[in-house]
Order: sequence, then structure tokens, then C-alpha cells
Amino acid sequence: MHDEPIMDLAHLGHLELLTPKPEESLRFFVDVMGMTESGRRGDSVYLRAWDDYETYSLQLTGSNTSGLGHAAFRARSPQALQRRVKALEDSGLAIGWHENEFGHGPGFRFRDPDGHVLEIYYETEWYNAPPELRPALKNQAQRFPARGANVRRLDHFNCLAVDVQANRLFFEKYLGFRNTERIVLNDGTEAGMWLTCTNKSYDFAYTKEEHGVGGRFHHITYALDSREAILVAADIFLENGVFIETGPHKHAVQQTFFLYVYEPGGNRVEVANAGARLVLAPDWKPIVWTEEERKKGQAWGLKTIESFHTHGTPPLPEYMTKGEAETGATAGVDDLSEKGIAS
Amino acid sequence: MHDEPIMDLAHLGHLELLTPKPEESLRFFVDVMGMTESGRRGDSVYLRAWDDYETYSLQLTGSNTSGLGHAAFRARSPQALQRRVKALEDSGLAIGWHENEFGHGPGFRFRDPDGHVLEIYYETEWYNAPPELRPALKNQAQRFPARGANVRRLDHFNCLAVDVQANRLFFEKYLGFRNTERIVLNDGTEAGMWLTCTNKSYDFAYTKEEHGVGGRFHHITYALDSREAILVAADIFLENGVFIETGPHKHAVQQTFFLYVYEPGGNRVEVANAGARLVLAPDWKPIVWTEEERKKGQAWGLKTIESFHTHGTPPLPEYMTKGEAETGATAGVDDLSEKGIAS
Amino acid sequence: MHDEPIMDLAHLGHLELLTPKPEESLRFFVDVMGMTESGRRGDSVYLRAWDDYETYSLQLTGSNTSGLGHAAFRARSPQALQRRVKALEDSGLAIGWHENEFGHGPGFRFRDPDGHVLEIYYETEWYNAPPELRPALKNQAQRFPARGANVRRLDHFNCLAVDVQANRLFFEKYLGFRNTERIVLNDGTEAGMWLTCTNKSYDFAYTKEEHGVGGRFHHITYALDSREAILVAADIFLENGVFIETGPHKHAVQQTFFLYVYEPGGNRVEVANAGARLVLAPDWKPIVWTEEERKKGQAWGLKTIESFHTHGTPPLPEYMTKGEAETGATAGVDDLSEKGIAS
Amino acid sequence: MHDEPIMDLAHLGHLELLTPKPEESLRFFVDVMGMTESGRRGDSVYLRAWDDYETYSLQLTGSNTSGLGHAAFRARSPQALQRRVKALEDSGLAIGWHENEFGHGPGFRFRDPDGHVLEIYYETEWYNAPPELRPALKNQAQRFPARGANVRRLDHFNCLAVDVQANRLFFEKYLGFRNTERIVLNDGTEAGMWLTCTNKSYDFAYTKEEHGVGGRFHHITYALDSREAILVAADIFLENGVFIETGPHKHAVQQTFFLYVYEPGGNRVEVANAGARLVLAPDWKPIVWTEEERKKGQAWGLKTIESFHTHGTPPLPEYMTKGEAETGATAGVDDLSEKGIAS
Repeated sequence: MHDEPIMDLAHLGHLELLTPKPEESLRFFVDVMGMTESGRRGDSVYLRAWDDYETYSLQLTGSNTSGLGHAAFRARSPQALQRRVKALEDSGLAIGWHENEFGHGPGFRFRDPDGHVLEIYYETEWYNAPPELRPALKNQAQRFPARGANVRRLDHFNCLAVDVQANRLFFEKYLGFRNTERIVLNDGTEAGMWLTCTNKSYDFAYTKEEHGVGGRFHHITYALDSREAILVAADIFLENGVFIETGPHKHAVQQTFFLYVYEPGGNRVEVANAGARLVLAPDWKPIVWTEEERKKGQAWGLKTIESFHTHGTPPLPEYMTKGEAETGATAGVDDLSEKGIAS
Repeated sequence: MHDEPIMDLAHLGHLELLTPKPEESLRFFVDVMGMTESGRRGDSVYLRAWDDYETYSLQLTGSNTSGLGHAAFRARSPQALQRRVKALEDSGLAIGWHENEFGHGPGFRFRDPDGHVLEIYYETEWYNAPPELRPALKNQAQRFPARGANVRRLDHFNCLAVDVQANRLFFEKYLGFRNTERIVLNDGTEAGMWLTCTNKSYDFAYTKEEHGVGGRFHHITYALDSREAILVAADIFLENGVFIETGPHKHAVQQTFFLYVYEPGGNRVEVANAGARLVLAPDWKPIVWTEEERKKGQAWGLKTIESFHTHGTPPLPEYMTKGEAETGATAGVDDLSEKGIAS
Repeated sequence: MHDEPIMDLAHLGHLELLTPKPEESLRFFVDVMGMTESGRRGDSVYLRAWDDYETYSLQLTGSNTSGLGHAAFRARSPQALQRRVKALEDSGLAIGWHENEFGHGPGFRFRDPDGHVLEIYYETEWYNAPPELRPALKNQAQRFPARGANVRRLDHFNCLAVDVQANRLFFEKYLGFRNTERIVLNDGTEAGMWLTCTNKSYDFAYTKEEHGVGGRFHHITYALDSREAILVAADIFLENGVFIETGPHKHAVQQTFFLYVYEPGGNRVEVANAGARLVLAPDWKPIVWTEEERKKGQAWGLKTIESFHTHGTPPLPEYMTKGEAETGATAGVDDLSEKGIAS
Repeated sequence: MHDEPIMDLAHLGHLELLTPKPEESLRFFVDVMGMTESGRRGDSVYLRAWDDYETYSLQLTGSNTSGLGHAAFRARSPQALQRRVKALEDSGLAIGWHENEFGHGPGFRFRDPDGHVLEIYYETEWYNAPPELRPALKNQAQRFPARGANVRRLDHFNCLAVDVQANRLFFEKYLGFRNTERIVLNDGTEAGMWLTCTNKSYDFAYTKEEHGVGGRFHHITYALDSREAILVAADIFLENGVFIETGPHKHAVQQTFFLYVYEPGGNRVEVANAGARLVLAPDWKPIVWTEEERKKGQAWGLKTIESFHTHGTPPLPEYMTKGEAETGATAGVDDLSEKGIAS
């Protein structure tokens, strides 16, 4: 009889994003994405989508660069948190407890093999909407904003990793994530992998960092209710001079309907919809995509844009990207508007 | 050989709505419907949807009651305007020229047999968006607002009439409107008729006034791009405590996907989508619905709500509605919220 | 420290529906719903939606009446199955092992307090599409059919129960289901409850049986990818003379976008979409709706149709429904078309 | 006072497409597009979309090559037809009357300056659905098929022309079409123009033929009701091994949501949705796009695919396309599937 699956993590809780343009980034997330500020502390503004049940899902932190501050998962129970902390302490990658955070209880921080900082926690503050943001229906966290793209809830994130497989094995072994799909190149190395701890087909993904630099970030994704909502969001990005990198289109991997833009701080942001797709099988067998299959591009034939393989945050040092079409790594909305999206 | 169709009117241009609660009505049309103010004069505020090419499509006029001020159609050419003025002068229902109007040239006013005031004009001011409202794409009148229901353009209106058939014959004979669908009761009287001067299957409709009072108004309709947009609008109305009378659902007549609400001044407002339906046939034969067919309700079985037959603006004198379920005829958002839509 | 949540059940696997009109029911599920036959045995035909990963999600069994044969949940692991069997053996409601079933391994059957038959199992056969039904994308179980309503996957079911609360407590205690929402009347009795073992906000629901008859069935639900897909399905039902009971509209409870029809055997069938709504919180606090709140009707004001409280399968004996508007309990498509949905 | 607009043409009626693979093309239009056969004569099969009011909108003719047989517009009245015939006789490009056509009365044929064959007619046969195809709602031509992409109605077509401007002036002068948008290159030549005789923003378009060959065809377009329906169609094309050239995406010009595929005979086919966009202004001023603006690609940044400028039907002689990425000019579904869209 096989080991039982580890069910100790409940879901992705929040991301901390660094931005060198905190005011412009904040305006992007509030006015264009339609998110709500739920608090400030130090250099950070805490933001939420209207269906996030916790106080926030995005910690936006002013910095001298862009990229991921940390990503945090909520454990299923206090006991589950303790079990994972113990496992992580054995992993050699533990950082330790982090107290007094905004909106949630003690978090245990650690690094993945690529160097990104992650966190697990259990205790959390449920969002308590002020009167003017109270929803009409009591089974909803906050009033629908009717502003900008109206993103619904944090869905997933994507990091770059120099050794994708090493990171997959780490998350599977120490945290119990399940791998639903992955890309394996002809030489046997993994170019991408998608992991879940829920019925969503992925809660995060890691794809190949081509320059050998650790700890880089690829994108954060918020879910919308329909593909039509993503098409409307595309118009809203266009009207606001936001740089649209690629999409809307449907991924072959995971079949998500996607749209990628860069926020003013240079971080890639996705809005996505999965339709009614869920991974319900407890023994789901990972789908393995070959190098040849991936060359076919996205589901309906769109070729994967070059910058999707090169642009990450923080930006690479200049000597690494000579001759590459690195688009807008640290560019803000103003700079990007010159790239000719809007007339 | 038959007479050729009269093609002298180009489209519905704008409506003037009266409201006893001008501030609340204005907030409804701007914040909830997502419209833009393009000017003020006297007791009127002029409002537009983002795809209206003229300066405005709604003149909102403060008044001691609700209902229709006037409805205006744009002629196809100066010559066409002259031809229709001449025909109207023969009709015995002409009022005369109306000068110095906001946003358009001389309008010729007249009454329909039921007493509503209408107008035709040719010269008009195209909307010139200020810098902050300029769209990204030059073939669009105004930036997509990303606020509230984001209504796209004025679509049609609906008046009540004591003698529906007399009004149909008037509009056909003197103005060249074409009848696409109508309801004929078992006793031969017409209970509703839909007229067009475009490829839309109707630009306005008249339905039966049951109390014998002339000049009453049923609803104004703005078009949205998709049925999904109307479902999103339903949530926005719900969140804003706007009284939803009926819908979203699909009409059997004309197959429009509809949603009806009352604006704070008591006037019924519809948001609708027709899909890709157009009436292209120049010799379209009117669809005639029988009394029995109409009893089946709407396309998917929703029964037509009683207030749809009784609620119009201005409200009826109280002695006429004793015992009737007259819902919110003069009621504003505050009063209607007691009717229990929102918790 | 609280007890940890029981995570032993993975998801709803399949339902067995009884039908007195097996041929008509089969045609409904294949031609109108867009499902695929994956096998036959005895009086049963096994059917699947294109995204179901197991061999089937609906066992349609010819019978002298309508209603639920049994409902089956897949366990998360062999060990989890054993734990739940042990718990059920203590419950006094165990039936015992059921072998040699089509498409899955040994199932352990039991009754809920209201008398419905349920089953849990772990071993299962993944669907292996024949060449002509192989999908273009390898992460999909079966080719998209492009026929009828194209239902995607089994979503949930709803039974009637004389004592709703007793059934909720049974499922919580012995199987670890989590209650996300419920209706509690002014006298303290429960009128409805929604339970989940996944991140869907419910995998099944029980609502009040008003006549004191046990073991009755309310509806089976298939998920579609968008609300637009449900509107298209409404047209398809209309064109095929299928009786539409109510909808499309949005539930206040759970906020699901719904559409209810009766299949030819008399069983109620729903197509639904939840948008991107998931219950991710491991400690979700049940939403409790009061009697007053429920009287407001559905999210956008649609009143709950009377038959929604009375129609279940199998039909009630005639003496129980005297004077009630029992619509089409055993009626087939032919009979229902007389009720005047289609012209 | 300006001349009045000519309103003599009512709408695009039908297209005749040539195909070297008549059986495969027929299967594509019936099974994948969801169209219905309404008759056969000689080498032609006549096909219709469910909302076309005339007998057919597509004449599919077996041939030794691909491309346009002819395109036909319906006149607004018998008198209007006579006026346009007289004008065409003065143009020097008249061919003459064509009698005994399937489904409509006498058609007057002519050539445009680029050599395409066109036709105008007035008398027509309205579609009379056989019992099994009768719709539930009497204001609809035919039952919704619930098969394949379910295309609704013929929307427009696009031809290539060596001298775009000369063709625009011809259609404006002799037939009264109105130009809504066009592309003017830096050297003053026109690269594209869109013409309408309805409230649709275009009924056909001509774009630049780069090889100096006259009479070539670019694409035929059927309208769907929503952008979501086009996304569903993309999946259906994918599942059926149909070559998807580009899309779904939103055009900057005309803002149409588009998806282009090649039918087995090599002709380009589009499914499109315009939202609620209509050109209602009778004096619409053409939008002129510059060379620089067009280089920005489509509305949300998709670069216009190279084959969009080179692929037309019939295919060019081989010596003209040396070194060009001419994709699938005469290729059928089987050949195209090797290009790697479907796994």
C-alpha cells in the first residue's frame, strides 16, 4: 500500500512583491486591477481582491528593485503547520519563525533550493469589510468593486528556477505538493512544473531560469470569473497604457485562459480563468509534455513570446542580456507606453 | 411595384428623462451605469455612454415628476429631415421647430397620437473627448470607463400607449418606421409593437397602457456587449441597492437578453444584449404574436412580472391603482431597498 | 487544539439515476446534454461528461420509477477508505461491500438517516478514450463533443430529507464532510444544508422534504465552463422541448448560476457554473441563512418557484399532492411540451 | 447641400466559394461550422447558418481550384435594383443578367476593377424550415443546431485587390457603399478599406494584393453571438484538426473579435463577433489608419501574422511564392494537421 498523500497545506495565502515604483504599482493594483487596500505598515501596502477571505493576498513593498519578497501558504490546521515545520527543519533550508506580521499569526520561513523565500502559517485574520464595502450577499467577503478589472482572488504564482526538478522534489517531499503537469526536455531536464495542494490544477509553477541566476520571479496571477472578463480586462489594460506582453489565449499546459501584463514596477501580472476545470483525482498522474510538443505553442497555435522565457524580476544585470529582447524589465507604465501599444 | 421603403431616419439619438430626484438619478447613471456627463444647462444634465458618437444620448431633467421629456431621432440627411417635417406638418400633430438645443442643431418637434413629445433633427455635434477620456483606439468615441455597468450605447426605448395600433400606423406612415414584431390580442387590438429605422430589430416599442392615461413612459435601454456583461451588471445593481424588477432572462419577442431596474427617479431602465441578431431583410414580414403565445411567458419560461404591465412613469394618480401592486412608481433607491433585494 | 479535519474523501464520483423511460432519458443525456456512453450492463447505461476522468459519472438505470439509485464518493487513498468503512460500521447504517461494479473497484454501501443509498470506493478505472474521441490536448480526458449542451463534469447532487440536520450531522461525523452554508428556519429546524469534501463550495446538498417521505431525490448537476454556456444550454433545452423549471439565475445561497430542467424520466437536472468561486479556507465558518433572508428569493430577486419545494423523485403518491402544483413528476418530454414552453 | 446617401443595397446575401476538395469542405461547413445544407444543383451545395433568413448564404462549388466564385448583395427594392443596374451599365464593368439561380430571382452580375465577380438581386426565397428544423420561437429562421461552432449568420467577406483605392471608389460611386475605415500607407496608397451598406461597420473589405494578381479572395466571415462562442469555436477547430491561422484576438481596425482558420479547400474562414458595435451615424467620417499605427499590430498587441498578407485563394503560381511562408494555400485539413496544431 502506498503512502497516503500529505494534506497539510490548505492554499496559497499571499505574495509579497517588491517594486521600485511603489506609487505607480499601487495605482495599478487599485485602479486598474480593481483591488482594495486593507492596510499599510512600513514600506508595505496590503491589498486584497474582493473574494479573498483573508485580510490581504498581496503585500506590495517599496524597494530598490522588483521581484518576489516572499510567498506564503496557509496550513490546514495547527497540527499540520507543526508537522511541516518539523519536516522543513530537517530539510536544511529552514529560516525560522517570523512573528508580528500584518493580518496573520506566526509564519515559518524557509528557502526553496533556488533561493526564493517562502512561508507557512495557520492563524489568520478573516477580512471584516467596513460598512461601505459590505456585500449584498452574506456569503461574500467584500462588495464587488465595479472598478477596473475587478480581479476576484489570488490564484497562483510562477517562479523561475535554475534547477526546476530539484525544486519540484523539494516541494513534493517536504510540503506534500502534488505535481499535475510538467515539461521534460529531450535531454531529460525539466523546463517547467506545476504543483498543487488544492483542487485547482496548480497553486504555483516553476519554469526554467536560462541565465543561472537564483531567486527570480516570473508572475503573479489573479482569477477572474469568465474568459469574457479577461477580454474586458485586456481593453482596460489597453486604455490605461499597461504593457500587454501576450494573450489573451489558452495555454496548452493546464488549459488556462491567460493574459499577461507588466505592472509599473516591472513584475509580470496575469489575469486568468480556468473554466470549471479542477483536478479532483487524488492520484492524478502527472502529464508530461515533451520538447517537441511545447514547440507547437499554445493551445490555439499562438507561439510563446520570447520575453516569456527571458523576462523575470528582479531584472538581470545588463551584461547578461546583451542582444536579448528584454522587454521592460524595470520599466513603468510610462516607459512601456512608448512601445506602441496605444495610439 | 410596391412603394419603396422610406429611409429618412438614421437612428434614435437621445431621450430626455424627467426625474423628481435629480441628484440620486445622476449618481445612478454615472456611478452605477458607468455613463459620463458631457454638459449641463438649466435643470438638465447631459449624459453619454462610451460608444455614443454624438455628444449625449440622455438628457436628465429635474422635475416634479418622472417620465419622458422627449425622444429624438436623427435624420439621414438635411433633405431627409425636410421631407419628414413636411409629412409631419400634414399629420396634424406637429409642434414646430425647437432651436438652440444642447449638442445638436434645429429639431422639429411633434406628438404621437398618444401624446408623447418626439423630435427629429439632422445637424449634430460629434463627441470630442477631453484628453483624460481619449480612447486607445481611434475608431472609438471615448475611453472605456471601467466603472459600474459600463453601458455601451443607447439602444431603444419603450412607451405606453392607450391605442398601440394608432401609434404604429402613425410612425409607419409619417416617418417610415418598419414594424418587425407585434402582439395582437384575441379581440384584434394590438398590445405591443416594435419599430425600427435601422438594422437593429427595434429602435423603440409601444405597449398597451391599461389605465387609459396618455403620454406615459415604460423604459429606456442601453446596450452592453455580451450577456455576461448583463449578468455582471445584475451584481452591480444588487451591490448598489438598485431595485431589480425582472431578469436577467431572454425575451421571446425579439429574443433580447434583458435586465430591468428602476432608477432613483422611478423610471424603468433596461440593460440588454441582442447577440449578433440584426434585421437585414428590407422586406421583413412582421412577426405577429397571439395572446396565447404571450401567456407562455419569456423565452425560457419566466412569467412576465405583473408590474411590467402596470408600472410606468409618471406614476398614475392614486385612485387608479387601488389594490394594484404598483411597485415603486415614484420610489427612489432608498425606498426600494426596503423591498428586500439587498440584505 | 481542535481536532484536525478529516480529509478521507476525495470527490463525488458518480450517481445512479432511475428512470421509467430509459430510452428517452438516454437520448436526453446523449443528444441534449452532450454526454458520451461508456458502457452498458443489465438495465444500466453508463454515461460520462467530457472532462470526467473516471469511466463514467452517471449510471442510468431503467426502472418502474424515478429517483436516486445510489450516489458514490471516491476515497483519497486505500487507507482512507478503510478508515471510513470502519466509521460507517459503527454508525449502524452500513449496508456492506458491493463488488463487481462497472468501472470501479469494491464499494462500501450505506444509508444516510433519510434512507438514501450511498457508496464509497477507492479503486477506479481512468477513462481511456477510443481513437475517434481522443482530445487534441493530452491533459484532457476526452474530445470536446460540440454536441448539445456539452456538459463538462459531474458537479454535485441534491437530495430531499425529512430531517435535514440529522443528515448533516451524519455526514460530518462519519465521513468528514464540511458544511459551508445552511438555512435555519425561525423554529430552529434546518431547511437546507450544503456539504463539501473538496474546494468546491459544495459537493452535495440536502433540502427539506415537506411530505415526510424518505429517500427522495432533488437534482443532479453538471458543470459548464461559463454562464454564457448555460444561456446557450437554455436555448438548446428550449429547442428540444425540454421542460425548463426555473432559471437561468444566480442562487443567493452559494451564488451558483443555475438552470433547472426535467429529464424525460422526471428527474430534475441542473446545469451550473460557479465562476472562479472556491472555498479555500480549511476552517470555513458555515454561512447561516434565516427564514426571512430566504424569502427574498434568489440573488437578483427571482422568487423560488413552488415546484422547487415540491417536485422530487420518485413522485409522491397521488393522495399526498392533491391540490398541489406538482409539475411533471413522472412526465416525459412529450407530456411536458404541452405545458407550453415551446410554440 | 450635399448629395443624399444611396441606400439601394440592403445587405450581403451570399458568397460562392470554389473548392478543390468539395467533400471535405462540405464536412467542414456542416460538421465543424454547424451549417445546414439547403439544396444541391450541379457542382454546388447550398448552405445556410441558422439565422440566415434567405435559403442560403454559402454556395460551395467543386472546382479545380479555390477562391471566390461570386459575391451577391440583395437590393432594397425592385426600383433600387433597377437604379443600380443602370449605374453599373454605365461603369463599363457590367456582365449582365444571370437567371434561374437557386434560391433567388434574377441577378445582375458585374466585375469590380480587380476582376472579382459580384451580383445584385432583389427577389429571394425566404427559408422554410422542414419540421425537424423548426425553431421553438417563431421569430427565428431555423432551430439552433447545437452542433460544432453553430455559426449564426453570414457577416462579411474580404477580397484582395491590386489597387485597393480604385475598388473603393468603384463601390462607393456605382453602388453607394460607405467607407468606415481604411489604411493609407506613407506613400499615399491604400492598403485596406472597409465598406458597408448596413449598420454593421462593414459588409466587406478589400486589402492589398502584394503580387499583382487580380481576383483573389481573402476570407469569408460568419458571425457568432459572443466572444465566448468564438473561444469555444477555437477548441472545436483544435479538436477537429482544422488549421488555426491566427486569433482569437481583437482587431484594432473595426475592433472585431476574430479567429481565422483554413477550410479543407484552402479558403480562409473567419468566425467573428462585433459586440454591440454598430455604425449608426449616416455621415460617418472614415477612420484613416497610418502605416505606423498598423505596425503596432492588433488591439491587444498581437502582431499580424505574415501569412495574413500572403495567403489568398486561389493560390499563387509557385514561382511567385519562392521563399515565402505561404501556409497551406491549397492544403486540406489532413495536410495542415501535419503543421503541428493538434497532438
